[in-house]
Amino acid sequence: MLPFDILEYQARVNETKQRMEEQGIEVLLITDPANMNYLSGYDAWSFYVHQMLVLIIDQPQPIWIGRHMDALGAKTGTWIYDENVIDYPDYYVHSPTHHPMEFIAEILTQIGQANRRIGVEMDNYYYTAKAHAQLMRHLPDAVFLDADLLVNKVRLIKSEQEIEYMKRAGLIAEQAMYKGRESIRAGARQNDTAAELYYHIVSGTEEYGGEYPAIVPFLPTGENTAIPHLTWSDRRFKEGETVSIEIAGCYKRYHVPLARTAAIGKPPEKILGLTAYVTEGLNEVLQKIKPGMTCEDVNNIWKASIHRHGIVKEARLGYSVGLNYPPDWGEHTASLRSGDQTILQPNMTFHLIPALWFDNYGIEISETIKISDTGCETFTNFPRDLIIQDRFTTNPQDGKIS
Amino acid sequence: MLPFDILEYQARVNETKQRMEEQGIEVLLITDPANMNYLSGYDAWSFYVHQMLVLIIDQPQPIWIGRHMDALGAKTGTWIYDENVIDYPDYYVHSPTHHPMEFIAEILTQIGQANRRIGVEMDNYYYTAKAHAQLMRHLPDAVFLDADLLVNKVRLIKSEQEIEYMKRAGLIAEQAMYKGRESIRAGARQNDTAAELYYHIVSGTEEYGGEYPAIVPFLPTGENTAIPHLTWSDRRFKEGETVSIEIAGCYKRYHVPLARTAAIGKPPEKILGLTAYVTEGLNEVLQKIKPGMTCEDVNNIWKASIHRHGIVKEARLGYSVGLNYPPDWGEHTASLRSGDQTILQPNMTFHLIPALWFDNYGIEISETIKISDTGCETFTNFPRDLIIQDRFTTNPQDGKIS
Repeated sequence: MLPFDILEYQARVNETKQRMEEQGIEVLLITDPANMNYLSGYDAWSFYVHQMLVLIIDQPQPIWIGRHMDALGAKTGTWIYDENVIDYPDYYVHSPTHHPMEFIAEILTQIGQANRRIGVEMDNYYYTAKAHAQLMRHLPDAVFLDADLLVNKVRLIKSEQEIEYMKRAGLIAEQAMYKGRESIRAGARQNDTAAELYYHIVSGTEEYGGEYPAIVPFLPTGENTAIPHLTWSDRRFKEGETVSIEIAGCYKRYHVPLARTAAIGKPPEKILGLTAYVTEGLNEVLQKIKPGMTCEDVNNIWKASIHRHGIVKEARLGYSVGLNYPPDWGEHTASLRSGDQTILQPNMTFHLIPALWFDNYGIEISETIKISDTGCETFTNFPRDLIIQDRFTTNPQDGKIS
Repeated sequence: MLPFDILEYQARVNETKQRMEEQGIEVLLITDPANMNYLSGYDAWSFYVHQMLVLIIDQPQPIWIGRHMDALGAKTGTWIYDENVIDYPDYYVHSPTHHPMEFIAEILTQIGQANRRIGVEMDNYYYTAKAHAQLMRHLPDAVFLDADLLVNKVRLIKSEQEIEYMKRAGLIAEQAMYKGRESIRAGARQNDTAAELYYHIVSGTEEYGGEYPAIVPFLPTGENTAIPHLTWSDRRFKEGETVSIEIAGCYKRYHVPLARTAAIGKPPEKILGLTAYVTEGLNEVLQKIKPGMTCEDVNNIWKASIHRHGIVKEARLGYSVGLNYPPDWGEHTASLRSGDQTILQPNMTFHLIPALWFDNYGIEISETIKISDTGCETFTNFPRDLIIQDRFTTNPQDGKIS
């Protein structure tokens, strides 16, 4: 039932414990849902209430603590023994009088962990300022340490099974892009294209059913292509507009993002010119990237390439990607940018998104890659160019494509 | 372009300021994306990086602070003047050396707000423990106050325009449930039903295009109906299984959730019996609920109804719902449960989800309502009963429905 062999989970736990030891952490409170899944297999949309995995340096099994109605999912969907699944009653949920971290502090006290060195994921969405304040208040004898990204760093290099899941996510992303693009034409509504993209992302392939990606499809259109994180509206596409499409395929919570830009009708000259610069830069990066380089080195290849065309771009070229939950598929560890000295190693995986955004237009063409022994491999196979949608015209009689 | 008249945004700001005054807050830092949208109109999937709206008691306009590449969206998509949109460079994003809250503290200092009484949303997903620690460190002369749910409470009573958007969301939810149910049959994959549901949620109606709901469709199946927050897998439905379907329609970020349970083939007796109890209880609540009651009163109606059948349920009956972003469509204010003394008023909106979960099965049948002057109105019109999918059988020859 679990997506990985129990030995793989145990190896992940052991590597996490090694890092805990290096950082002087005896108890690690894991609130990032991707990290919870990574170490235990737990997978449910229950992260909107407080929950965590507790990893104790001298105990073999993690402990899951969460809401009563979610506990059965932790029992059936993880490799953790049932007695290590502990739940709090519903009156702790969104309550003005009870906070789940009071309950959790009480449990940690009962199991003798109240005076230890406790690591917490300080900058994770699911570890709020109040969660931290409550824990500190109710565990006055503990020493709190920032363990943000500790598990994320273990996640940086993927196993062969993780790479296999990403390949499946790549097939799904590629297919969704092919099918979704067909719906882009003058007169069609943006949301109907988003619906098509979603349908194919979730339906997946015949062999591999898709899951919900950590981010919804981005579909900024026309002047809004200058604003990367817009989703969609119910406005209709117009002849002459461009559309940036950024999606991901997701399989067993592993993501392969893919972005392309589509032109409806004949693309403006400036878009064609920009596209040539972006693909040239991206191709150069894909050719030259290899293990042993730093993240900064990779960004420098891209910067030098666009600099030849007089373009300077401040935003990072890309970031580490893989297992995740909303609101982000990025792993928040390695970024391909100036100053990041992370050394590339085989089976690291990155989303390269060498986008260019200007005042009222932008171009996005991306690839997700794994670092191989000698270079890199892309997870998708979709023409690395502008999508030109002038093959399609809407028949005014029946509204159907002709 | 904005979904509400500027006067409505200003009224919301004024009511927020009144509450700030009551709580002795001079500067409110708003990190909840729904609250940011509510006060400014800002709508983008940029909440995966730190951002906020700053509301200063003695200044007329809020200030938006966020990432450089998102600033244009704040300029074009809100009623805030361009000079009140301030952005931080990309090297603050997911960086081990720079934190956006350092930048934000510097801005607050520059505009003379460093020594004021500052309210922060302590338990919001997008206000992390580290965000708070950084602000406190870099604004040592400020007094920090917990302003969690301050704006959420302003959101409790909806305007007529908000109700109108929820009606559209209700149409979308209802249609998606009708269309999605058709795909549920023995032999079909769960993820293909999820894909159909998603397609219709996002495609919406001919008049109203749909948006992404704050939560993805839940689709626990078979024994997993006992585990409410599971999404879906690519397993195939089996004859005799039940499926809980919980979705929402979303329009202009306003949600109308809707849950039903479907039986594939002839439903087991125990499911029929449970369904009768749930619908009886739900109908009784819908008949009796009216302004002036407390949330606890409403829960008591439900409790008394199921108690007649010997059932005791601890989880709350429902919660306030409306404008939202992932990971939750609930507003985290009023809950229909013991102890909640919130008094119902016209145009409050609730998701009533009188679900029953047991060890290896469960039933979910829900309605989203608005409190009217004399009682309540539901936003959707879908039979309040078990969905029985025995009309459909798969033809083994061609896999098509016959």
